[in-house]
Amino acid sequence: MYGSMSNTAYEALEGRFRRIAALRDARAILHWDLSTMMPPGGAAARADQLAELSAVRHAILVAPQTGDLIAEAGDGELVDGQAANLREMTHMWRQATALPEDLVTALSRAESACETVWRKARPANDFAAVLPYLEEVLARVRDKAAALSDALGLAPYDALLDEYEPGGRAADIDAVFDDLESFLPGFLAEVLEHQAKQPPVVPPQGPFPVDRQRALGVRFMEMLGFEFDHGRLDISLHPFCGGTPDDVRITTRYDEADFTSSLMGVLHETGHALYERGLPQDWRSLPAGDARGMSLHESQSLLIEMQVCRSPGFLRFAAPIMAEAFGGDGPAWEPENLLRLYSQVEPGFIRVDADEVTYPAHVILRYRLERALIEGRMELRDLPGAFNDGLEKLLGIRPPDDRRGCLQDVHWYDGAWGYFPTYTLGAMTAAQLFDAARKADPAIEAGIAKGDFSPLLGWLRKNVHSKGSLASTAEILTAATGRPLDAGVFKDHLRRRYLT
Amino acid sequence: MYGSMSNTAYEALEGRFRRIAALRDARAILHWDLSTMMPPGGAAARADQLAELSAVRHAILVAPQTGDLIAEAGDGELVDGQAANLREMTHMWRQATALPEDLVTALSRAESACETVWRKARPANDFAAVLPYLEEVLARVRDKAAALSDALGLAPYDALLDEYEPGGRAADIDAVFDDLESFLPGFLAEVLEHQAKQPPVVPPQGPFPVDRQRALGVRFMEMLGFEFDHGRLDISLHPFCGGTPDDVRITTRYDEADFTSSLMGVLHETGHALYERGLPQDWRSLPAGDARGMSLHESQSLLIEMQVCRSPGFLRFAAPIMAEAFGGDGPAWEPENLLRLYSQVEPGFIRVDADEVTYPAHVILRYRLERALIEGRMELRDLPGAFNDGLEKLLGIRPPDDRRGCLQDVHWYDGAWGYFPTYTLGAMTAAQLFDAARKADPAIEAGIAKGDFSPLLGWLRKNVHSKGSLASTAEILTAATGRPLDAGVFKDHLRRRYLT
Repeated sequence: MYGSMSNTAYEALEGRFRRIAALRDARAILHWDLSTMMPPGGAAARADQLAELSAVRHAILVAPQTGDLIAEAGDGELVDGQAANLREMTHMWRQATALPEDLVTALSRAESACETVWRKARPANDFAAVLPYLEEVLARVRDKAAALSDALGLAPYDALLDEYEPGGRAADIDAVFDDLESFLPGFLAEVLEHQAKQPPVVPPQGPFPVDRQRALGVRFMEMLGFEFDHGRLDISLHPFCGGTPDDVRITTRYDEADFTSSLMGVLHETGHALYERGLPQDWRSLPAGDARGMSLHESQSLLIEMQVCRSPGFLRFAAPIMAEAFGGDGPAWEPENLLRLYSQVEPGFIRVDADEVTYPAHVILRYRLERALIEGRMELRDLPGAFNDGLEKLLGIRPPDDRRGCLQDVHWYDGAWGYFPTYTLGAMTAAQLFDAARKADPAIEAGIAKGDFSPLLGWLRKNVHSKGSLASTAEILTAATGRPLDAGVFKDHLRRRYLT
Repeated sequence: MYGSMSNTAYEALEGRFRRIAALRDARAILHWDLSTMMPPGGAAARADQLAELSAVRHAILVAPQTGDLIAEAGDGELVDGQAANLREMTHMWRQATALPEDLVTALSRAESACETVWRKARPANDFAAVLPYLEEVLARVRDKAAALSDALGLAPYDALLDEYEPGGRAADIDAVFDDLESFLPGFLAEVLEHQAKQPPVVPPQGPFPVDRQRALGVRFMEMLGFEFDHGRLDISLHPFCGGTPDDVRITTRYDEADFTSSLMGVLHETGHALYERGLPQDWRSLPAGDARGMSLHESQSLLIEMQVCRSPGFLRFAAPIMAEAFGGDGPAWEPENLLRLYSQVEPGFIRVDADEVTYPAHVILRYRLERALIEGRMELRDLPGAFNDGLEKLLGIRPPDDRRGCLQDVHWYDGAWGYFPTYTLGAMTAAQLFDAARKADPAIEAGIAKGDFSPLLGWLRKNVHSKGSLASTAEILTAATGRPLDAGVFKDHLRRRYLT
């Protein structure tokens, strides 16, 4: 398939990375099982299994032969996507070899200890209790940032960000976040004023039996192009998309008093799943065939959820199907009511409950804070106050306690520093991709309005999914939309969605 | 815990075998998932995952350091069960290192090719089509037997048997199978005559909804001591017990026209599950803590199914619960009718459908044939005739075609030579263990008759489950029952069950 048979080092390297992928995939299924199927008594053995798979995968990656083969393969002839694949393999190897074993262990211990304390400190609203543990996590994360910074030639924050968002740079994020930050407070005021003039939302009345909610979710998933021969829908406490590209498994949780949140969650995860499923078949189990990064991944879920499924076109099509699924009748089931329900805006303290308009404020705040902490421009003891000041400035509301402030998200406490910005990068990318898609092919919006998603899926497959990691996020976005990431399209989307 | 801290080689070896166990356990869960949850499109990736886990496990086992550590550990001090554990580790290592890589690969290829052809040859009744593939499998299995024979100092057939039944020897099997073979034909005639005088069986009329069948199975599983905090019950095409000791997963399949077969299958798998769950906690993830072998494993499922759940005591207790579960009423639900239903004897061609009385004939026939083939005393082209002759001699019925003759079981075609005898060894062991148990503690039979299985489970935990692989099968059986395996107890059981 690759044309060249002469680069045996490259071929050996592919074999090695296919093994690494098989171990990662095995781990993904075991993690899915842990979240959906495993009885509680299986937890200890499962932890051993997951740790062993990580250890074996890491050992293959950092083995001296891997480095030797990378060097040799680079000297040989490479065709088609092989250069991109070698670049990705090299990047994985450099990341894995950059960190000394004792730092990996120390960080893992610090994270476990801190997360355990956080699980109690959050409900107890006790930042002081978790502070020393968080200090330890941050110290080790800064060590990690320094080590990665040396190995990759990146600034410390960029080195952390790069794990979640390969090629992502704080300078680029600053540009778009600054733009958004100056726009949001004024825009929010306009939206709230506009919303106040609309008729009040009438919530549909339940109960909504789980089996009917599931059947409705499955119906929309199938319409969107989810292949149940290659995936599943199950229940877990925290919804996620897991599994592997040919066996994509999404989860949700059901509330019999309110179907709207779970349904939109299912559609969100379906967006992630369609991306995984559409990754390039020719590069399966090789780094060039992997999903590109967290912002592009989130863009695919948000494109389906926010751009498509909360749009007037879709909701007018979907409202009668929802009403039929639950035997609903009356004003609550009117398309215009469901549309208002699915586009309500209200500033709140909790990020995961936030609407599309206020969500970026939560992310921008966390991005500014975590960067200042990583770069040593701020002390952790000042975090609670800075958090509350920041939210007040951005959204005009001040968290009354740390539980609803800097204690709310697990990310910092379990070591995921550099992750937050990808949420809003994903939202902006989603808007920009969808805007390009609907302009490229009028059949896309027309299809959505009648439940035919194949024009949209075709465009996404061609312009995003099939690119895997053969190009960078910026290259994929520019090729698909004609320009680099630009907050303008997202702002236009928000104006159209929330002010008309 | 082990008292000695001086044998560092032994400790390093334990660490190595815990890793091997984690990889095996990961594989067990992935295999369960494949059979119960995996969408068909996940098959190719799953095959890669399973193959990689096998390869890594094998590589750790055969690494030179493993052999070095085994030698060193043997020179050091060993306390408590450490000697047994070292013996089991050594045995695993010797088995793994005995086979050259190219033979393992050739055998695996031959098995895959043959099984694929067999899947079509069986329904097509075409032994000739699969014969060349089976010739290849047998040739490679004989190579394997020769290699294991050299490494382990066992006769070739014993070397194969030893994989499924550590310590099992054909000479011992011959003794008990000869005894049984001379007994069965005459006994069968008596049973059929006795049965003809009984009132006819009235089959309960369905439909029996799957959810009610499941609920009934769960109710009996819980009574028997199955812990759902440490296990699951699911559906698969071929019922099995999988997972790991702290996360034991059994499966069944349901027929809405007949609940009786699935229910007894669930109880059978529950017997396997209770054994796994009861393996010694102190030796988890180490070879001394593993299940002893296939005959002891099968003894635990058959003890629960045949000795306990098809007994008059249990069925008289269970009949009203079954009737209640399905709203059943009338003669079909009378305990004595269910008892007759669950102890019907009828010679048939198909092993997996056979009753307790005729089952051993199927096994003895296969054992004689596979041994003759392994030992070169018979040609494969003569297998169909020999199979049919043998069944006619043992059961008085002659398969009209190979589909119902030598093509019926997958075992030989996928390389499981030396496995068959463990089914009947298990049946005899079950009878002998249950006989000892009920004599040791009258509360056991009294408990079964009122749905209290704790005295039985306590005895099994103490005398069988907690022994793990700390002793041999023969040692465990002798310690528990006062004598080595003896067909006499099984024959007594059959007489009592089927002639009174």
